[in-house]
Order: sequence, then C-alpha cells, then structure tokens
Amino acid sequence: MNVAIVVYERFTALDAVGPYEVLSRLPGASVTFVAAQRGPVRTDNGMLTLVAERSLAELAGPDIVVVPGGPGDVVAHAGPAVLDWLRAADETSAWTTSVCTGSLILAAAGLLRGRRATTHWLSLERLRALGAEPVAERVVFDGKLVSAAGVSAGIDMALTLAARVAGETVAQAIQLGIEYDPQPPFDAGSPRKAPAEVVELLRSRRRSAEQAGETADTRG
Amino acid sequence: MNVAIVVYERFTALDAVGPYEVLSRLPGASVTFVAAQRGPVRTDNGMLTLVAERSLAELAGPDIVVVPGGPGDVVAHAGPAVLDWLRAADETSAWTTSVCTGSLILAAAGLLRGRRATTHWLSLERLRALGAEPVAERVVFDGKLVSAAGVSAGIDMALTLAARVAGETVAQAIQLGIEYDPQPPFDAGSPRKAPAEVVELLRSRRRSAEQAGETADTRG
Repeated sequence: MNVAIVVYERFTALDAVGPYEVLSRLPGASVTFVAAQRGPVRTDNGMLTLVAERSLAELAGPDIVVVPGGPGDVVAHAGPAVLDWLRAADETSAWTTSVCTGSLILAAAGLLRGRRATTHWLSLERLRALGAEPVAERVVFDGKLVSAAGVSAGIDMALTLAARVAGETVAQAIQLGIEYDPQPPFDAGSPRKAPAEVVELLRSRRRSAEQAGETADTRG
Repeated sequence: MNVAIVVYERFTALDAVGPYEVLSRLPGASVTFVAAQRGPVRTDNGMLTLVAERSLAELAGPDIVVVPGGPGDVVAHAGPAVLDWLRAADETSAWTTSVCTGSLILAAAGLLRGRRATTHWLSLERLRALGAEPVAERVVFDGKLVSAAGVSAGIDMALTLAARVAGETVAQAIQLGIEYDPQPPFDAGSPRKAPAEVVELLRSRRRSAEQAGETADTRG
C-alpha cells in the first residue's frame, strides 16, 4: 500500500501529518512525502520545514493520494505541476483524498466536478465555485474521492479510510495506538457549536485577509 | 511567546505537530523545532523527515517547552544533551510539557520526581519506574509541568494550555480554526473503551517487541 502525501510551499502541517500518522500504521504501508521538487518544503507559518523525499516525476502510481490544504490561494501555491500529477495519479489510485482546502486543489485539477466533497468550513463556497458540490460534513466519500473538513479532520478521514482498506480491527488498533480518544477542552470546533463571537472573529479575519489581498488568513 | 519543540531521531511526528499546529496560532507565538544538532531529523518509521532549525546550544530560555515521545527507549534516543538542556530550560520556562512517552524523557531528566504525570497508556508503569506518579488521564497539570497521554492527546493538551496562556476565547478561536470537532469512526481510542481483543493485540505487540529487544513496538 503506497501512500503519497503531496506537499507544497505553505501547506498546513497537521493536514498532512494527521493522515500520515494513521496511514503509516497500516500493515505494509509505505508513505512518501512528494513535492514538485525534492527537498525542504515550508509550512504556512514558516516555522516548520518538512522534507519531500521524492519529486512528482519520481513517484508514479500511488495507491492512496493525500492532498493537504493551506491558507490563501492553495491552487496557486500547489502550482500546475501538482494539478497535472494529480490527474494522472487519480487514474490509477485506489483512493484520492484531501484534507481541509486540499479539496480546492483536487477541484482545480478537475477531479471533483459535480461530486460531493468537503473542505474547511470557511471555504465551502470556494469549493462550489470550482465545480464541486460542497457538503458540511467531517468526512465525505464520493466513490474513491474522499475529503475531510478543516485541518484536524484528516485524522478522522484517515481512520475511516483505514477501516475501508484493512478492516475495522486494524483501524481500531491504529486508533488505540495513537490513543485517539479526543477530549477537547471546549466544544468549539465547528461553526455550529462555537460561540457566535468566535465564529465572527474568524469570519472577520478571513474578510480582512481577502480585502488586503493577503493569504495569511485563518490558515488551513 | 517562544515555544521550543525538542525533536530527536525516532520521535513520533504527530506528538510534535499536534501541539505545533495549536501553539503556533497563539498571538505573537514563535515556534522553533530544536534538536541536539541542527538539520534533518527522522521520525519513528523513517518515512518522514522534519528539519530542526536550531541546535540546543542555539536556543535558550523558551517560554514553553514541548517534548514529543516515540517508541522504544526514548530516553536513549533523546540522549544526554537533551536531558541537560531540559533541566536548564525548565529553570526559566513558564510551561514544560510532554506528549506521549515524552514524559519519560522529562522524568529521566529528573523533572517529574513525585509529580503527577501521564504518558501513552502502554507506558504508565515505565513512568512510575522513573519516579513520577502516573495518572491515566488525557491531560495532566502539576504546577507548570504538563503532560498528555498518547500521540493525539497533544492536541487536547495544547488547547488546554492555550486557554491558560491566552484565555478561552483565543483557545476556542484556535480550535475553530483547525476545525477540531473530532468524530472518530470508532470509540476505540482508550484501553477502557476499545474491544478487548484490540487492547490485547497492542499489549502482545509490545511484549514481542520487548522480548526481541526491539524498539519497533506500537510507536509513540
């Protein structure tokens, strides 16, 4: 089971590392971080660098593709080489997946046309503009296309996928191995649950970033 | 607010990246990955490389220290230079924290003597052997020493810490920003909840790894 996680400048780290931590524990799994060029790739805030072990040209035919998101114009950050590679990889993959605004990249590659998909709650309309049918759910399966909501949702997506790929017992063993028994201190992880002023705070930050033409918005 | 995340060969990626993703969003936060030597550091399975931007010698006086865990003998993997640095950093830190078996490293540095702390559920007795009072809770505060249970618990720890450092509204905005509204597909993330055969599977893997003198156990 070969898993390719596609990274690019300004991706959000947890979008990628959540699924990596789960999928790398599948029996026989091999996970490769891949980018347009081999070498160091910086995350959205510039505070963390991961290494892409392979260039896109060096990695063909993965069984599972994972596309993390990031802030701002992720389609431009990913670049046309990633879109071309995703179209080719999707022709033979068993599963093509995204986390957060990674689904905007899949959509820009033409892979989500008319399909149900999700993304970060602040970006659902951007997903619609790219031809997908946005769904405000945490994990969305449409055939072999699988998308997760914002950032941390990649863990839930990967566990769900692990069960499809290797069965429930394996997925539960992975969950217990990473002790994923979440106990967030607040029930504020969704716009339907967070205090209204917190939702508005993030919406206003997003508006300010868009008005300023900046990409340093709410990240991810 | 300077946050130092201490990495070493064979650390578990999500232990570090969960808290990073939360704490990097604190207003004015600067997060630095630090290791005995600057440069690339491989995670436990050899499939991911992160870059330590600073050596321990180059980074003094962080406000928050985060120590991730890993499989096997994490104290040996971390090495004596990390233990020395942690003792010094703890003298001036506002918070000294660990995720998963990272608490074994804090304990080996002498920082958890007689203190309440937690770790991965499979390692609670190892924590006791190092002089701490193990507690099977997800996030444990004992003064400024804060520990999280296995791997994914670092996200809950960091959100709890974010609220202490910057207030509940900031912590909730971070939670909503990373859309942390967990919906695991199974309720199998704790040995008290997982099916007995899944718990026994992980225990037997751990025993086999220990008998073989291997460190490639359940990771984390």
